[in-house]
Amino acid sequence: MEEKVNKRQPRRPMGKPVRVQKNGGDKKVILKPRRDAGKRTGDKKPAGKKIKPLKIVFLGGVGEIGKNMTAIECGEDIIVIDAGAIFPTDETPGFDLIVPDVTYLVENKKKVRGLVLTHGHEDHIGGVPYLLKELKIPVAGTKLTLALVDNKLREHRINDAKEIVLTPGHPVQMGCFKIRPVNVNHSIAGSLALAIETPYGTVFHSGDFKIDLTPVAGDPIDLKTISDIGASGVLLYMGESTNIERAGYTMSETVVGNTLDRLFEENAGRRIIVATFASNVHRLQQIIDLAVKHKRKVALSGRSMHNVLEAAEKIGEVRIPDGALIDISKIKNMRDGEILVVSTGSQGEPMSALTRMANGENSQVTVGKNDTVIISATPIPGNEKLVYRVINNLYRLGAEVVYESLENIHVSGHACREEHKIMHRLLKPKYFIPVHGEYRHLKKHLQLANGLGMPENKMIIPEIGNCIEVTQHGLRRGESVQAGSRLIDGEGIEDENQSMVIEDRIQLSEEGLFIVTVAVSGGEVVGEPSIDSRGFVFDFHRDYNKEIREVIMRAIDSCNPAHTDELKRQIKRNLRNYLMKKTRQSPMIVPVVVEI
Amino acid sequence: MEEKVNKRQPRRPMGKPVRVQKNGGDKKVILKPRRDAGKRTGDKKPAGKKIKPLKIVFLGGVGEIGKNMTAIECGEDIIVIDAGAIFPTDETPGFDLIVPDVTYLVENKKKVRGLVLTHGHEDHIGGVPYLLKELKIPVAGTKLTLALVDNKLREHRINDAKEIVLTPGHPVQMGCFKIRPVNVNHSIAGSLALAIETPYGTVFHSGDFKIDLTPVAGDPIDLKTISDIGASGVLLYMGESTNIERAGYTMSETVVGNTLDRLFEENAGRRIIVATFASNVHRLQQIIDLAVKHKRKVALSGRSMHNVLEAAEKIGEVRIPDGALIDISKIKNMRDGEILVVSTGSQGEPMSALTRMANGENSQVTVGKNDTVIISATPIPGNEKLVYRVINNLYRLGAEVVYESLENIHVSGHACREEHKIMHRLLKPKYFIPVHGEYRHLKKHLQLANGLGMPENKMIIPEIGNCIEVTQHGLRRGESVQAGSRLIDGEGIEDENQSMVIEDRIQLSEEGLFIVTVAVSGGEVVGEPSIDSRGFVFDFHRDYNKEIREVIMRAIDSCNPAHTDELKRQIKRNLRNYLMKKTRQSPMIVPVVVEI
Repeated sequence: MEEKVNKRQPRRPMGKPVRVQKNGGDKKVILKPRRDAGKRTGDKKPAGKKIKPLKIVFLGGVGEIGKNMTAIECGEDIIVIDAGAIFPTDETPGFDLIVPDVTYLVENKKKVRGLVLTHGHEDHIGGVPYLLKELKIPVAGTKLTLALVDNKLREHRINDAKEIVLTPGHPVQMGCFKIRPVNVNHSIAGSLALAIETPYGTVFHSGDFKIDLTPVAGDPIDLKTISDIGASGVLLYMGESTNIERAGYTMSETVVGNTLDRLFEENAGRRIIVATFASNVHRLQQIIDLAVKHKRKVALSGRSMHNVLEAAEKIGEVRIPDGALIDISKIKNMRDGEILVVSTGSQGEPMSALTRMANGENSQVTVGKNDTVIISATPIPGNEKLVYRVINNLYRLGAEVVYESLENIHVSGHACREEHKIMHRLLKPKYFIPVHGEYRHLKKHLQLANGLGMPENKMIIPEIGNCIEVTQHGLRRGESVQAGSRLIDGEGIEDENQSMVIEDRIQLSEEGLFIVTVAVSGGEVVGEPSIDSRGFVFDFHRDYNKEIREVIMRAIDSCNPAHTDELKRQIKRNLRNYLMKKTRQSPMIVPVVVEI
Repeated sequence: MEEKVNKRQPRRPMGKPVRVQKNGGDKKVILKPRRDAGKRTGDKKPAGKKIKPLKIVFLGGVGEIGKNMTAIECGEDIIVIDAGAIFPTDETPGFDLIVPDVTYLVENKKKVRGLVLTHGHEDHIGGVPYLLKELKIPVAGTKLTLALVDNKLREHRINDAKEIVLTPGHPVQMGCFKIRPVNVNHSIAGSLALAIETPYGTVFHSGDFKIDLTPVAGDPIDLKTISDIGASGVLLYMGESTNIERAGYTMSETVVGNTLDRLFEENAGRRIIVATFASNVHRLQQIIDLAVKHKRKVALSGRSMHNVLEAAEKIGEVRIPDGALIDISKIKNMRDGEILVVSTGSQGEPMSALTRMANGENSQVTVGKNDTVIISATPIPGNEKLVYRVINNLYRLGAEVVYESLENIHVSGHACREEHKIMHRLLKPKYFIPVHGEYRHLKKHLQLANGLGMPENKMIIPEIGNCIEVTQHGLRRGESVQAGSRLIDGEGIEDENQSMVIEDRIQLSEEGLFIVTVAVSGGEVVGEPSIDSRGFVFDFHRDYNKEIREVIMRAIDSCNPAHTDELKRQIKRNLRNYLMKKTRQSPMIVPVVVEI
């Protein structure tokens, strides 16, 4: 794996597409041997040359948390598991969304039999519309998952998607694959693991899961079926790794209900605002039930809260007692102790209902000292500052705020180490590939499996673009495929030049900009060059203006103005050197030559 | 406090300077009454009109964690406690450092008697050079603090600073203030609390502290003196609030030594690399002692590791046994089990020694599978991604990595809730102001004090720029002063236009840039307008070029080219509208008109 190290500085974009050389045919790229190569015993090539191995192609969700997408390929058939998105970071400034680069699937269009969704979280379905714009394939998922996908497809005006409703226990066939959905627990209803029967044996994909034996709605994870599948033999297990660093077990969702019940009790007489993930419909069910118990009416705040609850109620995933909900506009006429506002914004999203409340900009809810705000969520890594800013501002308004570092008002949706051990023990797979995690998570999951007796040569840590070939005889790295990120910005989709666009944006944001404009007529410079700067920091004690003008004039004098490109290069070079020397800054310099 | 809510979206700069109206003389600005105003009993104005109150002016470190700076003013005397810096975030992209706006001190230059430093961390001393460039005042601190300040002053070529060495138990006089340094424990040696005798009574400032009764070097916090000071009466307590959300006690530094000892034992035969804060000299002492015990030689990696250890050894704060240190170039000829590399980069800083190792770019240390890397630190909020990237890349290189979520290899330097209670009980202050924390921390500290019996009307939560007036008769908000941030970028210091520079940078990074250049001669447009874009994302399926050109031509046609400003405005307006409509993006548009 040594060759995979990212040698770039962190300001570089992550998930840079792996552009592999097209070297024709099925010729294998021989990778450097892994450090445990000598120990491998089970890794033999398939006997017959014609037998095509089962390929697992990782298009997202490995080496990162987000935009999950895995293709499983056998002969002339490919199925895709999940089509997620990931939110941009300061390394991809200004973009709206990042989805997987699906070039590999487009190039193998004819083979792709369908998309199977494990559940309805953004990192599993956020890329669906972008995938369906490229490939007309059926989409399979549970009712709730498909309802959430439908909301997205409508926004993108995709009306012709073929959908297949998955129900645990009812397999569907896609090409040579028989897909058996298995009920698991997670922080969204309708979550599945997938047992996929292939010509080589069963591949088990955990989806995102936890073991909740006292879920607040729906069934506990189907350990019986998982154990039966394990007993009949699992070729490959792909297991999620999000919480692999946490010891023990994740607490049951019922714990949250107990804490909320107590908080409702303690805050009788005060208005209560609960912010949580709209997609956690069983959490919403608990909150609504508690409101009824404590004689509060529920007012929803935030668009996605309405959308998701409506979709979930329609398919029976949530039951809302008659009269429990009121319109948010009604709360003005009610007593504080009778109101429960359920709001989006638990991640401090800038435009969300809760953030606008905290900023005093929410026209429906004015927060004050008789409010208790309960944030029933954990900040997703990277969102901490946004969440804490909201908390600080709510405190400034005089409200009481209850958040996770103070109370048990959130539980994770992901399995901890002991739950992973149960999964491994029940499945007893022949091979193991950890998925859904940064490299450190995948590594730790590998070590956990190793501790349970899985030999190192039967496991591989994948990276985006990797193709791992698996047969009954062994597990090995195949030829990598093109994979990476597609950056979405407004209506724009950046594929070809994304690293240039990102580098430009980062340079502009870190160093600012100089624009030098020179007019040239008949091979001669005419008029004065104009100099504009934006986002550049001068030492206010000094005046650089005259010197900069001289630097530019010297550049013009030193070359033939008729050669536009040379003139631009010279201006750029001279000004860059000058600014670096004098200001120790390196802004973007854009020379513009107008020919008249 | 209602009027203080930040109504801006999070993309706005933090710590925007409060520009107060200069309304001459000592006229008080009457602020809105606080919500607990009715309950105040102790808040009477001083009897005589001539008696000036003691003023506490908050120039940094409240409502934020970082750039601590507090001025204490009485009559004609001001002393400044700490002059910290804070590192820029994605809200202040590209800047090197942020220090407090010290306009208030500059305007009151004649009164300022000196700067007193509680300890040598960046958020307490990082702004010293910038303050000393404006004000020639004596700087007081413990030996180690001054040694670290000296390193900074040399970089800034400040050679004439007057320094006063503080030693616990030995008071110094500055103007009317008698400052008594009190030994406390923290994650850097030479940390002080300050008991400041003023004409109104004693002000006690905690500095940053924890209660470590078994420190690895130096003395435990001087609870006896603190208790004596409490017994003789404390007018005002200003207490740090960093860990106020954590229950119980912070563990002793000795815990780290025990864990490291075991890890050294377990990793015999492997090369060990420990990354930690260079400034935590007692941690370094433990690490060096363990190396000696386990027969390893210590090689330092990273400039600040050398600088700090050298400074600390010179003043006797660290004792390095003869022959314990070797040059890093020597490790190539040694066996792995004999080497301990102590490195900077525990926060994942992009240019640090450890990050370069993780990226395979450190010429001295090539990380491989026989390395165990111990990160003896916690990611400071905001640094998580950088730290985890380093961990992921170290794993990719085959190394084992031990970090805080796995082992007790770091303890905080800040007091938890029970320690704070001890401090409050011993000091028994008349008034209390929580400091060093975001608003939520300050609020929680206030609630803790309230739980110990301090009435609400004897406490105030300060914000940057606030002046709080205190006498024996009461505590109240005075007139706010100009305060906020100075942004440092290379040699540039942005004061006047900082919000514009930041807004430009953020817009550029999020939306990219269009430059439209038009040449005008004798009131007529000549030649073709030129259009350049940077960092802008087009939908690669479409060609906007022709349309954009038409939009610009229409703008030119609709106005008189002789009126340059109108022409620019029109081009900007038309192009902005077009791009928003067609691409849903809003890049910066820079129209340039060259007159020839």
